[in-house]
Amino acid sequence: MGFQVNQYKNIAIIGCGAGGGTSAQFARKTDRNSNIVVFEKGKYPQYSKCGLPYVLSGNIPEFDDLIEFSEEWFKKANINLLMETKVDQIDVKNKLVIAKKGNIIVEKPYNSLIISTGSKPIVPPIQNIKIGEELVEGVYALRTIDDAKKISKFIEKGKKATIIGAGLIGLEMADCLHKDGMDVTVVESMSTVLPNTLDKDMSNIVQEAISEKIMLYTGYLAIKIESKDRKIKKIFIKNIKTSEEKIVDTDLLIIATGTKPEISLAKKAGCKIGKTGGIIVDDKSETSMKDIFAVGDCTEYLDFVTKEPISIGLGSIVVRQGITAGINAAGGNYRLKKGFLQTCTSEFFNIELASVGPSIKNLENSSIISGRFKGHSLPDYYPGGKSITIKVIIDKKTGCIHAAQAVGSNAAQRINTLACAVLNEMDVDTFRNLETAYAPPIAPTLDVMTLACDVASIKLKRRQ
Amino acid sequence: MGFQVNQYKNIAIIGCGAGGGTSAQFARKTDRNSNIVVFEKGKYPQYSKCGLPYVLSGNIPEFDDLIEFSEEWFKKANINLLMETKVDQIDVKNKLVIAKKGNIIVEKPYNSLIISTGSKPIVPPIQNIKIGEELVEGVYALRTIDDAKKISKFIEKGKKATIIGAGLIGLEMADCLHKDGMDVTVVESMSTVLPNTLDKDMSNIVQEAISEKIMLYTGYLAIKIESKDRKIKKIFIKNIKTSEEKIVDTDLLIIATGTKPEISLAKKAGCKIGKTGGIIVDDKSETSMKDIFAVGDCTEYLDFVTKEPISIGLGSIVVRQGITAGINAAGGNYRLKKGFLQTCTSEFFNIELASVGPSIKNLENSSIISGRFKGHSLPDYYPGGKSITIKVIIDKKTGCIHAAQAVGSNAAQRINTLACAVLNEMDVDTFRNLETAYAPPIAPTLDVMTLACDVASIKLKRRQ
Repeated sequence: MGFQVNQYKNIAIIGCGAGGGTSAQFARKTDRNSNIVVFEKGKYPQYSKCGLPYVLSGNIPEFDDLIEFSEEWFKKANINLLMETKVDQIDVKNKLVIAKKGNIIVEKPYNSLIISTGSKPIVPPIQNIKIGEELVEGVYALRTIDDAKKISKFIEKGKKATIIGAGLIGLEMADCLHKDGMDVTVVESMSTVLPNTLDKDMSNIVQEAISEKIMLYTGYLAIKIESKDRKIKKIFIKNIKTSEEKIVDTDLLIIATGTKPEISLAKKAGCKIGKTGGIIVDDKSETSMKDIFAVGDCTEYLDFVTKEPISIGLGSIVVRQGITAGINAAGGNYRLKKGFLQTCTSEFFNIELASVGPSIKNLENSSIISGRFKGHSLPDYYPGGKSITIKVIIDKKTGCIHAAQAVGSNAAQRINTLACAVLNEMDVDTFRNLETAYAPPIAPTLDVMTLACDVASIKLKRRQ
Repeated sequence: MGFQVNQYKNIAIIGCGAGGGTSAQFARKTDRNSNIVVFEKGKYPQYSKCGLPYVLSGNIPEFDDLIEFSEEWFKKANINLLMETKVDQIDVKNKLVIAKKGNIIVEKPYNSLIISTGSKPIVPPIQNIKIGEELVEGVYALRTIDDAKKISKFIEKGKKATIIGAGLIGLEMADCLHKDGMDVTVVESMSTVLPNTLDKDMSNIVQEAISEKIMLYTGYLAIKIESKDRKIKKIFIKNIKTSEEKIVDTDLLIIATGTKPEISLAKKAGCKIGKTGGIIVDDKSETSMKDIFAVGDCTEYLDFVTKEPISIGLGSIVVRQGITAGINAAGGNYRLKKGFLQTCTSEFFNIELASVGPSIKNLENSSIISGRFKGHSLPDYYPGGKSITIKVIIDKKTGCIHAAQAVGSNAAQRINTLACAVLNEMDVDTFRNLETAYAPPIAPTLDVMTLACDVASIKLKRRQ
């Protein structure tokens, strides 16, 4: 019997977030007999981190609703999920994962290992933000259910909340706290909101709309915190250009200034780390070390268009890497395309936005042309049409669609169509000919996607 | 001066529907100096025929709202729009269009001619449907504003309406009359609703939902009408299989059994007519006769996938042919792709549906595989997700996506993404890797589009 057990493959997975959990599922689908063990340092099995703001706003009733795969689910799938078990070391020589659950040491052998250690928040250097090693009470990053539970205690109608960072998570949180009746301020060091998602001309549409509902400081750095009884009371911010300072009263401070890959275990094990700080993986989601895979926010892979390394925490990427690593770790053969499109979307203050591909600042300005069109979701004669603005970025030589951004009605689904165009390296004139679905209550004969391409195509022809 | 005028190109356009109107606009954009004349036999300049049901339902307030380009608009664009002017003949030898406005003969020379004569309703051979040459009072097809105005007089809450034909227009009208409070019956000779748009497994979803709201007879032929005082009172229908007859009381009968291309002028002029009965056009929208173009419902072009000739009245196609013919007639160079995707959508009884590419019955059954997935528009943990079912049809040899159908949330925009895949002859495994936009309030990490492709891909691999 002992002999028989040994002939099955041992797959170890570190982390049971979306990446680790998905890997485990697809490893199981690929090899029904393998021994799969998942180490999770926290108290919760696979849950949606992206859903946390919506529990805080009340859209999702309970934190437990976010759990996508329960401990029972893993048990039924014959996956050995070790909760509250923190991995200390990957013993590459002996192919062992060494962990601790409380004071008990747990050792598991592996033939294939998948690292899904995620990322950790970047806490900006704000004076007095910590007392000792701990953040001041009332100051939180939003990464885990535990963070969210702490934040929830500070949510109170009429009280003041400040968010540092006007990226997707910062603005999602701003909307959620605003819905909770809080008086919300957002501080962003860049000159625009959503600096990593939209170009300035597109983010301006968002900025104008949200400025009516919250206090927004762009081009401001948070420099100092003032606390009372160990609780945050005020935050000092400074205009980067003019050095003018302002003091914002606040009862709650959310840090949403991005994350960095959590790579310490992988680095010690010898996996190559890339220039973005993530674990380098290939199209099999394998690291520089054979049989060691990595997925999700802790990794670095290529942008599809620029072929430059990127490390971004998008659920859509995590899941696709998880599928890939799970299949390959279990002996299957599944490859990602050569780079990620970075398709993403969000919605706040009743504005939907989405983007695909690199933003203009990541492309060589001399090699691209863009076209932007603002139109409506329905034909002009049909009541109830909503505004939608689309921007496409194309290659000046080939006419190839490299990227697109959308703000307004059904932005996400429209960007999916443009993502399909980017993936196919489709040229703008072919896209102009795409017959989009038309019916008066649903969409106009020429969708705004097509019209944005018309603008780009005309600009392209003028320069040729 | 006379000499100068003569050196400009004369462009004549027959018909000011979406096809003719769009042609005129793009001819003007292409050549600012050309003399453009448009002959329109009716009383209304370019308006949306597809919008007519929504005026009848009250969604659009007035018939005049449907006018997309007014007589003033054409005047400002320096386009000579001749209203209520019926073309009698195209004199090919002398390059003249000969028309009549009342008793006055109007002759205009052309260098390029665009025929946009549309289509006319097919009236099925129902006994007593006509008195002399006229349809019985209360019996109408819905093609023009005038038809719709006549229908509107028969719309009355609590009264009975019957629709022959459960295609897109038939079901749009059923919903509209149902919204008006009428008691609606739909009679369809085929065994399913939407026989030209969806396969049976997909149309069943629609059929089940609408059967709760209206009386639906599929597999029934309308055979006889009974009138009183020249007004319709009853319609006799017969089950095609069992020959069982039923009598349906009705105060209004809408004929929605399709249309046939209106080609008489083109045929007399010598343009080749294809096997579907439409004027054959090429990728420049040019007919078999040099300098004579044709656009829209009167034409026949290729299906993109099967390369078989098709003649279908879709606004999205009409407009794209109009753009093409307009540019080319004015001396530009613009080509359509080799075939139409036939992307289409509609919405009735709160069900959105869409499709792209040929339906299964137009593809060789032995050469294709399909994958269907029913899922939700949002992640399971986010409240308010709506049902969406997607079917993809792929080539068994190449894995290439040939067609797709969707019923449910955002069906049209999802089909647009799949239309982009069909146009790029994308294979199903590449599509599975498409990163779709994800955010909890907007879409799940793996969109139903991707999951339908997973199903097809797995079936494909099993057979390989």
